[in-house]
Amino acid sequence: MKTYKPIKIIATGYYLPKAVSSEEIESKHNLSPGWSLRHSGVINRHHVTDESNGYMGAKAIEFALSNSELKLSDIDLIISAGATFDYPLPNQSSIIKSELENGNNYNIPTIDVDTTCLSFVTSFDIASRYLDGIQYKNIIIVSSEIGSNGLNPDNPETLTLFGDAAAAVIVSFTNDSESCLIKGTMNTYSEGVYHTLIKGGGNKYFFKDNPYDQELHSFKMDGTKLLKLARKEMRVFVSSFFEDLSFDLHDVDIIIPHQTSKIGLLLLQKILAVDESKIVNNLSSHGNCIAASIPLALHQAVNEKKLKRGNLCLLLGTSAGFSIGATLFRY
Amino acid sequence: MKTYKPIKIIATGYYLPKAVSSEEIESKHNLSPGWSLRHSGVINRHHVTDESNGYMGAKAIEFALSNSELKLSDIDLIISAGATFDYPLPNQSSIIKSELENGNNYNIPTIDVDTTCLSFVTSFDIASRYLDGIQYKNIIIVSSEIGSNGLNPDNPETLTLFGDAAAAVIVSFTNDSESCLIKGTMNTYSEGVYHTLIKGGGNKYFFKDNPYDQELHSFKMDGTKLLKLARKEMRVFVSSFFEDLSFDLHDVDIIIPHQTSKIGLLLLQKILAVDESKIVNNLSSHGNCIAASIPLALHQAVNEKKLKRGNLCLLLGTSAGFSIGATLFRY
Repeated sequence: MKTYKPIKIIATGYYLPKAVSSEEIESKHNLSPGWSLRHSGVINRHHVTDESNGYMGAKAIEFALSNSELKLSDIDLIISAGATFDYPLPNQSSIIKSELENGNNYNIPTIDVDTTCLSFVTSFDIASRYLDGIQYKNIIIVSSEIGSNGLNPDNPETLTLFGDAAAAVIVSFTNDSESCLIKGTMNTYSEGVYHTLIKGGGNKYFFKDNPYDQELHSFKMDGTKLLKLARKEMRVFVSSFFEDLSFDLHDVDIIIPHQTSKIGLLLLQKILAVDESKIVNNLSSHGNCIAASIPLALHQAVNEKKLKRGNLCLLLGTSAGFSIGATLFRY
Repeated sequence: MKTYKPIKIIATGYYLPKAVSSEEIESKHNLSPGWSLRHSGVINRHHVTDESNGYMGAKAIEFALSNSELKLSDIDLIISAGATFDYPLPNQSSIIKSELENGNNYNIPTIDVDTTCLSFVTSFDIASRYLDGIQYKNIIIVSSEIGSNGLNPDNPETLTLFGDAAAAVIVSFTNDSESCLIKGTMNTYSEGVYHTLIKGGGNKYFFKDNPYDQELHSFKMDGTKLLKLARKEMRVFVSSFFEDLSFDLHDVDIIIPHQTSKIGLLLLQKILAVDESKIVNNLSSHGNCIAASIPLALHQAVNEKKLKRGNLCLLLGTSAGFSIGATLFRY
């Protein structure tokens, strides 16, 4: 017998750095016009100029707070949900909090959760476990991602795909018994552990002995292997996700998938076999924003009234590691 | 009205790389004999030769499993609780799982939680929120830390202080109503956000434009400011921790603090004002092992029968960011 966890999305916000068109990238890197849209599905994305993860995260939080009736002093926990960071130490959530206006005035605890591209999905689940209406009434989840630094100019596939962005979601304990998390689950398929990798910059290839090298320090993904693994596992994952629920996939009103890539989203669409209009897609306008993709799409879905109170919403995606994860909630 | 969360520590394990004596470090770096013990309180620590975070974490988990009646297939979640990592991407928990014997055979979800030195304390709290006896019956929390790469040879204070280690703890849902988490809490004091820092290696000082530089890429701490902040906040934190509980600090049987430094532990001892024998101290034999210090000390306390079933145990520490955190549980 499952117990639904009360969690209500109170407000959302985001921050986007400067827009970068595919034309710009194509002309700078000698790609044929239209290469990006054809291969990655991306027309526009945003890349930082001098913004940091901390700055963007703080701006997204301030935007979300301004969309709510809450003040920073009402927040009981800040979760930074993402894979990229300003400094190896301290953790990103501490940096984001310190960059908030009045961030130093409140001793709100800060936690980093990293399941790479699924970090927001995992953190939403974790937040629902914290929210008890006593110690934890309001939690901010923020995903602030800068992937652009780690893009290899010699690899057009990734170069055109990734965008930078931050998005924040404020979730609250609720007694209204409508808004709740129904189920969250994730599987990690270790055969794909190195299908997505930044090799250098950690302890394995420490900078001291490994000076900057484009190959070593850039984001690398084996698209073919990733797709093969996703194709093999996604269908089983989705059908088993609904096995012990009284809903099935067709009861879901809206699906917010991670914006992996054009081909990744096409595969997902094919596997899910639901009406295309149910699947939120912001890939062409924002690219793959790592963990920020899903909360950014969530913000857009709420604002465009695609996601309405009472709707069943499924967050679903894949992540480096390799994992598939999903969280089903009633908005 | 607080509800205690059922969580039972089933088994613990660890992995330590090669021992490095203070004599070795002192003679190599022209420090006077006894410098390390006098200043850092460390006689011995362990530093990796060719081990990775992933390898050490996997070994610690395998040791913990061998101390239990569980198999890897019984595990529902692996949380990597730490601040250091093999690769910037994917997350550390995915790497650790993939290095486990038969790790590829089970699709156990893997999550990274990073509150720097408090990562284990936070993860223990999070694990208690996951454990429901249905979807989550058994969880492994593993802290695998390699700080030695980031030590500045020109800074004897940190050079002599830090050790590498991994420790794993298996926690299970329980119906016995004795073993439980009573309270977990953390405060982040942003005025101390940059008191502990590794400046280079993230997006702020990206490697591409910032080649390896000892100052930039080494761990730096402002011990004086940290102590001042800890002195100001720790007493208030501890007394308010017990405010809404029916226990007080003197009911606690055993305190496992983060092994910050000689002076940090002395300050804690002074503030807590409890019998010294209640405070577990492994600083002199292992140094400060970042997030691995607390689970390593927990393993030792269990093995030396200092921590016995029914005991009230307080995990308590400070972390970069700057945070103070504590978790009180009945073993």
